[in-house]
Amino acid sequence: MSHITAVTALPTFPAAKDCDPVQLGWMQGSPPPVDKRIQFQDTTSYRFPQVRWSFAHQRQLVPTVVVAQGHALPLSTSAHGLPDIQYTAMGGQGGGNWTNMMEATYTDALLVMHKGHVLFEHYNGVMTPATQHIAMSVSKSFMGMMAACLVAQGQLDETQRVGHYVPELAASGFGDATVRQVMDMTTGIDYTENYADPQAEVWNHMRAGGVMPRPAVYTGPAHFYDYLPMVRKLGEHGEKFTYRTANTDVLGWILARVTGQRTEDMLSQKIWQPMGAEKDAYYSVDSIGTAFTGGGLNTTLRDLARFGELLRNHGRVGSTQVLPEAAVRDTFAGADPARFAQNGPPTLPGWSYRNMWWVSHNPHGAIMARGVHGQNIYIDPKADMVIARYASHPIAANIGNDPHTLPAYHAMGLALLGSYS
Amino acid sequence: MSHITAVTALPTFPAAKDCDPVQLGWMQGSPPPVDKRIQFQDTTSYRFPQVRWSFAHQRQLVPTVVVAQGHALPLSTSAHGLPDIQYTAMGGQGGGNWTNMMEATYTDALLVMHKGHVLFEHYNGVMTPATQHIAMSVSKSFMGMMAACLVAQGQLDETQRVGHYVPELAASGFGDATVRQVMDMTTGIDYTENYADPQAEVWNHMRAGGVMPRPAVYTGPAHFYDYLPMVRKLGEHGEKFTYRTANTDVLGWILARVTGQRTEDMLSQKIWQPMGAEKDAYYSVDSIGTAFTGGGLNTTLRDLARFGELLRNHGRVGSTQVLPEAAVRDTFAGADPARFAQNGPPTLPGWSYRNMWWVSHNPHGAIMARGVHGQNIYIDPKADMVIARYASHPIAANIGNDPHTLPAYHAMGLALLGSYS
Repeated sequence: MSHITAVTALPTFPAAKDCDPVQLGWMQGSPPPVDKRIQFQDTTSYRFPQVRWSFAHQRQLVPTVVVAQGHALPLSTSAHGLPDIQYTAMGGQGGGNWTNMMEATYTDALLVMHKGHVLFEHYNGVMTPATQHIAMSVSKSFMGMMAACLVAQGQLDETQRVGHYVPELAASGFGDATVRQVMDMTTGIDYTENYADPQAEVWNHMRAGGVMPRPAVYTGPAHFYDYLPMVRKLGEHGEKFTYRTANTDVLGWILARVTGQRTEDMLSQKIWQPMGAEKDAYYSVDSIGTAFTGGGLNTTLRDLARFGELLRNHGRVGSTQVLPEAAVRDTFAGADPARFAQNGPPTLPGWSYRNMWWVSHNPHGAIMARGVHGQNIYIDPKADMVIARYASHPIAANIGNDPHTLPAYHAMGLALLGSYS
Repeated sequence: MSHITAVTALPTFPAAKDCDPVQLGWMQGSPPPVDKRIQFQDTTSYRFPQVRWSFAHQRQLVPTVVVAQGHALPLSTSAHGLPDIQYTAMGGQGGGNWTNMMEATYTDALLVMHKGHVLFEHYNGVMTPATQHIAMSVSKSFMGMMAACLVAQGQLDETQRVGHYVPELAASGFGDATVRQVMDMTTGIDYTENYADPQAEVWNHMRAGGVMPRPAVYTGPAHFYDYLPMVRKLGEHGEKFTYRTANTDVLGWILARVTGQRTEDMLSQKIWQPMGAEKDAYYSVDSIGTAFTGGGLNTTLRDLARFGELLRNHGRVGSTQVLPEAAVRDTFAGADPARFAQNGPPTLPGWSYRNMWWVSHNPHGAIMARGVHGQNIYIDPKADMVIARYASHPIAANIGNDPHTLPAYHAMGLALLGSYS
């Protein structure tokens, strides 16, 4: 754990209990007082603690498209309840019980399932079971799984070059990368994703997609498909994992071409309806209606958990095989940790990245979907456990909450394995 | 009908069947071809025939808030079906059967209920039973009914001045108008609503609310509550009806203050949930999240019909009194046609405007909710008939479709009265 020490000197922020968005009065009143307003264009919707409200109100800030649910399948509740366990945080950052973990990580909502039943479900602040919260990069794991399914079904050739499927990208840095390299983020492109750096390329990407406000005079790319062909190559493809959101939007483009479907319709048909989602989800979209596949999905907590359960159950809902089992198996198997180690976050030693899922290779075989500010799906197949968590941590990078989250999740997995198996 | 002759020389547009949005390929492909794109900022979403797509995709174009449904109550279907009737259009503009009427009025979706059962339900182009279409000024009738209910319940004093409820409006043209004058649009204010005039005040209102695109450099009011206090007085209040959208947004502000609720939550609690809506509705919102009560509601066709049924049933759902019967009765009774006649559209002789509903005073006692480009709820209590209609007529003013719509609706009421009563 020595490589964690670098993250212990974090800036200080108000404790979660001292920045509850309801108690702070954000956006209450007609109109809300000037100092309680949260808006897109003035960037207040991206500031902390305003994010504690805005992450659950994206639709009010930007244009969106719906991922339609079908017939809802109920989630049953277990009588067991959540074991009262303790965890020790990484890097000497304390620890405690799960209440402490939830506080330390600015958790907005948390749900734990065990053997398909809900053990624990909790909502803070503005969150309710019906509220769609932004999933951030957990969105990527939906696209990665969609792609893995199409590969398993023979509809997408993972060895083909990106330029084969999307000729507009042939001359870009992505052109000669394979679909597999995009799916596992081993492309070599000139694109940085350090959220703490205002000059990082990711912000050009976000402004193009209308996800971040633009200056009054803006002459940059008008939408995602305008931006992606501008990304240049840097280094070689396939050598190492480097986390870059642009890969997901390229993958989204490829899938749209391969299926002939809009992203939101594909996700509705292939996952949202079959898994029995209880609410529609929605994506933020760019100026021409393109879903922000890299980070713009908003869902209820329960539907996030349903997706985790779908994978834990090898792609099945009851006895129905909804996703090809091979695609799920391939995801749990992960990729080469050696390619991950060079650029993976210090909180994830020995992990890999496959089909846009984070694979722990731990004794429980856990995998995660992860989004900035603490969005998570955590699947522990050995413990038959799925955790869905929405959060609004003041620090974007998960290095801010991993030291609490990861030990707490694994401790719960161990406890459940011991308690009821 | 002689006062209709002025509207017979309308510009010509492609026939409805020649501008089906699916066949025209709007917004299909990844990305859609440049000449098939519909965007908010470049105003293409307001052009004809693009409106045939955009009226059913507002959420993809602007920020929105949800009016949440609760438990859906099914709509039953009658075995009778729609009588095959003929109508004669006003002003010598032809006529025919209902298929002709739907074509002539660019109908996107139409539903006819008789005695609480669906007789006919039809969807064109991009519309489906699950699609929310913009209701335009039909939105106003929801606010007017909400206000009438609060008056009937003693929570809102219709004789009070606007400035009493909203001090920010005290110095504006609305300040010394009564709530009733706002509800019936007899305020005397300096505000023009001629959609064919680019200089009309209504466009300043729309730009403030983010409903119309703003120029690159925009220094006008930032949101609805910034704009409304700027409206000046012109003439006297209470003298005559003049149709002005600003009245509704003032009423929405008053209701938000009186109830302490956000508009979308009030509508959900008071109407959407009790009437058994089968889908959420949504409002477009301004930069600080204020619902555009004057014209920004988007609903499914079936939920529009449910609202009509609620009024036809005197505010009851089954045996439950959802809305005060007095508020509904007051609406059907209408206002003074003499005050209406000076400024009412020529297609509505003898009508009046009450609680933001259009009251025919015809032998059937029909009332309507009406929105530009052909949005309608038509309630014929004598025939036990409710019609909900969404459309995308090339001409904003209903003078473009009233000559077909009104005779066809009344002919259907007569036929149903004769057929089954």
